[in-house]
Amino acid sequence: MRVTVVGLGSIGLGMAVSLRAAGHEVVGVDLSGERREAFRRQGGTALTSAAEAAVGAECLFCVVVDAKQTEELLFGTDGVAAALPEGAVFVSCATMSPADSRRLSDGLAAMGRVYLDAPTSGGAAKAMTGEITLMASGPPRAFDKVAPALDAVASVVRRLGDEAGAGSSMKLVNQLLAGVHIATACEAIAFAVRMGLDPHQVYEVITGAAGNSWMFENRVPHILDGDYSPKSAVGIFTKDLGLVLDAARENDFPVPMAGMGLQMFEMAAAAGMRADDDASVARVYAQLAGLSLPAQ
Amino acid sequence: MRVTVVGLGSIGLGMAVSLRAAGHEVVGVDLSGERREAFRRQGGTALTSAAEAAVGAECLFCVVVDAKQTEELLFGTDGVAAALPEGAVFVSCATMSPADSRRLSDGLAAMGRVYLDAPTSGGAAKAMTGEITLMASGPPRAFDKVAPALDAVASVVRRLGDEAGAGSSMKLVNQLLAGVHIATACEAIAFAVRMGLDPHQVYEVITGAAGNSWMFENRVPHILDGDYSPKSAVGIFTKDLGLVLDAARENDFPVPMAGMGLQMFEMAAAAGMRADDDASVARVYAQLAGLSLPAQ
Repeated sequence: MRVTVVGLGSIGLGMAVSLRAAGHEVVGVDLSGERREAFRRQGGTALTSAAEAAVGAECLFCVVVDAKQTEELLFGTDGVAAALPEGAVFVSCATMSPADSRRLSDGLAAMGRVYLDAPTSGGAAKAMTGEITLMASGPPRAFDKVAPALDAVASVVRRLGDEAGAGSSMKLVNQLLAGVHIATACEAIAFAVRMGLDPHQVYEVITGAAGNSWMFENRVPHILDGDYSPKSAVGIFTKDLGLVLDAARENDFPVPMAGMGLQMFEMAAAAGMRADDDASVARVYAQLAGLSLPAQ
Repeated sequence: MRVTVVGLGSIGLGMAVSLRAAGHEVVGVDLSGERREAFRRQGGTALTSAAEAAVGAECLFCVVVDAKQTEELLFGTDGVAAALPEGAVFVSCATMSPADSRRLSDGLAAMGRVYLDAPTSGGAAKAMTGEITLMASGPPRAFDKVAPALDAVASVVRRLGDEAGAGSSMKLVNQLLAGVHIATACEAIAFAVRMGLDPHQVYEVITGAAGNSWMFENRVPHILDGDYSPKSAVGIFTKDLGLVLDAARENDFPVPMAGMGLQMFEMAAAAGMRADDDASVARVYAQLAGLSLPAQ
């Protein structure tokens, strides 16, 4: 199948590599020469123009940052909506509000192309081995048509309904939980240190107890190693919890836990840590209270 | 070993049964005739007077609700501090502030008996099979002396230091995380329903994604079943997150995530759900927003 992947960041690059490994004909697109070069080193073909890469593609994965970039890719000056063949499937992987997802889907449908609302779960390592999860919704015929491509990038494709919006809604629910869990893990570790506990021992006890979370288990080691180089940056969660709060407001729905979680990431961003690892929230507590966290 | 267990609620009863199964000579104590009868049905001996049961005991497990009850048991009218043989070990399992734990330990030490600060993790089922976790601190000789009894009730005994306080601190860290995770699971599920998602599908997706937590996995099924009969009640977390906030204030330490979590349990309590299952926080969101959660 002819597949285009737009956005060769860590997830997009992994997806492009997985698609090639499954025997698909893949063109990668990125404005960054460094990222194009990374895909070429894996044997791939990479271009700067998305519209050019979209010509003849049966399926296009859009792995950009947000709704704004997705809209620009579809309908902007180098837009692919018109360049894609009629009936081609646009697989939208950015985290965005369900309302944006429905709006972009409607705009593309009006031009005779199909939109799959398909945010991802799973990091760079899983993308490289074709083992991410897609939380997806859209027309069943679109799922069927690009099934070989979806199966190449994902070990699990959750089909959440026939219309755009459900995939994005599920992703926001996941990000609400993930974001709050990171902020809470940081609060718990810092509080433990304040009370005189050894954070390494806390990690050992909690990961075997009812207070555990996927994020506690994954992020606390960054604090224990004193390593705040960004595996996933603070700025991702100011963005994603921001989207959660936007979507909640659109739905007249209170999300106080997510609201407080967002404020903790905003504190980290305000303290100059926006580009650092999201476990940096622990450093916010430590700075406030003059605590010593483990150093690298 | 001669062991007394005071408090034959679900955890204490399980511990008493596990101790008997390991061959120890066990006396259970509870003011409730129903609870004493439950232990007798398992072949156990049960009394109403703790002081009477303490005579000759080498080890006493105190499985009551809080510091106040623990203090009353030690130093009150039916107190065991004087009744226990010199050198006996008092294993304190209630969740309490580290400061209370240190105070009670000091008071008992002054009378020549030894205090182990040993809160539990794990529910009734694990207690019944001797597989809870103890987060414990106290004198090494006390650990050694009652090791056969500790091993009978717990599959893991975490030794967190030589002084009372560390065990209670670790338990508070766990309860901070657990409480916030429950409140957040309830918020996430209710928000998902508001956005039109199927909560059963949300459970399936999230338990396989980065938003998962031990509590999400354990409590959301109560919501899916519409079953709010108390496996663990709202009142446990207004108490335990209250202790977290007290301990944080004593340490001049901010815990905004825990603070917001406590407010959600207080909302459930205010809505008349104090004795219901802690997943009732989901019903607070549902009542506010007029949502339909699954019914039993």
